[in-house]
Amino acid sequence: MALQKALFGETNFMLFAPGEYSVTPEDASAQLEVAAMTQHPIALLIEKADKAINEEDFDTVVALYCEDAVLVIKPGTNAVGKIEIRRAMEAIAAHFDRSLEVRQAGMVILETADTALVLAKTVVSAKNQPAVERKATYVFRKDLHDRWLCAIDNSYGHEVLGADA
Amino acid sequence: MALQKALFGETNFMLFAPGEYSVTPEDASAQLEVAAMTQHPIALLIEKADKAINEEDFDTVVALYCEDAVLVIKPGTNAVGKIEIRRAMEAIAAHFDRSLEVRQAGMVILETADTALVLAKTVVSAKNQPAVERKATYVFRKDLHDRWLCAIDNSYGHEVLGADA
Repeated sequence: MALQKALFGETNFMLFAPGEYSVTPEDASAQLEVAAMTQHPIALLIEKADKAINEEDFDTVVALYCEDAVLVIKPGTNAVGKIEIRRAMEAIAAHFDRSLEVRQAGMVILETADTALVLAKTVVSAKNQPAVERKATYVFRKDLHDRWLCAIDNSYGHEVLGADA
Repeated sequence: MALQKALFGETNFMLFAPGEYSVTPEDASAQLEVAAMTQHPIALLIEKADKAINEEDFDTVVALYCEDAVLVIKPGTNAVGKIEIRRAMEAIAAHFDRSLEVRQAGMVILETADTALVLAKTVVSAKNQPAVERKATYVFRKDLHDRWLCAIDNSYGHEVLGADA
């Protein structure tokens, strides 16, 4: 069956299928593609958010979230809405003695017309701490003005399921 | 600082914070909670979808997706929209010689008013194949009639980032 072969064939190539967008800066063979692909509006928003977090520019950070967005502060503890998200960001910055650095080390964006799921490798580092790579999951929604905003920010990925997950 | 202590304290308990909902059937201590929590509308939809997939009732399966939903068939290959999703489901059923079984072994739902991210442990099994547990990510959207529908179905989680992810 041709469809079955297409779906389950031996080749394991990375197809940039409709609804998918991929950035993997470490992969040398993908370098040329990355230059064009980092122009994806959601990739640009995440870049803007990371820069703003690193500079503690929380006005810019909070403006990138939906009004009722959920941020996972740590597995089991969430901030809900812009006021709580801002307060959490400030506390996190203070906790890491203003040395927090966040960057993405690769991402895939799966999108429909108005909803997108980002699977990212997010590297979090701070002074006197080993850098941690998280398998982050971010959901973006388009608002009435066609702007993408972050609805769910879960940098812990499946860690929210607990240590046994 | 009280907030910092609250955010980063030693205790690692599972708080059912606003915007979060958790089901972990394996955890004996959570059994009582699970009975109530499996009533979450999205958990019920996923249960319905799994049952319909296992019974190859694809009309029921496809009705649970948004018109422009994205289904990851395998990392790098997506089906987009109900017609492609139905065709992929049929091909997958045939590929596994009609012995496919899907079930959830725990999930956390992070939700805003109209968007939800599900982090699930999804167990996929078929005859003559070892059962595989995937760290699945599902995004649901509410439609104009307040019904949750699946917008993005990525049972592979971060595997879409490639073998090096």
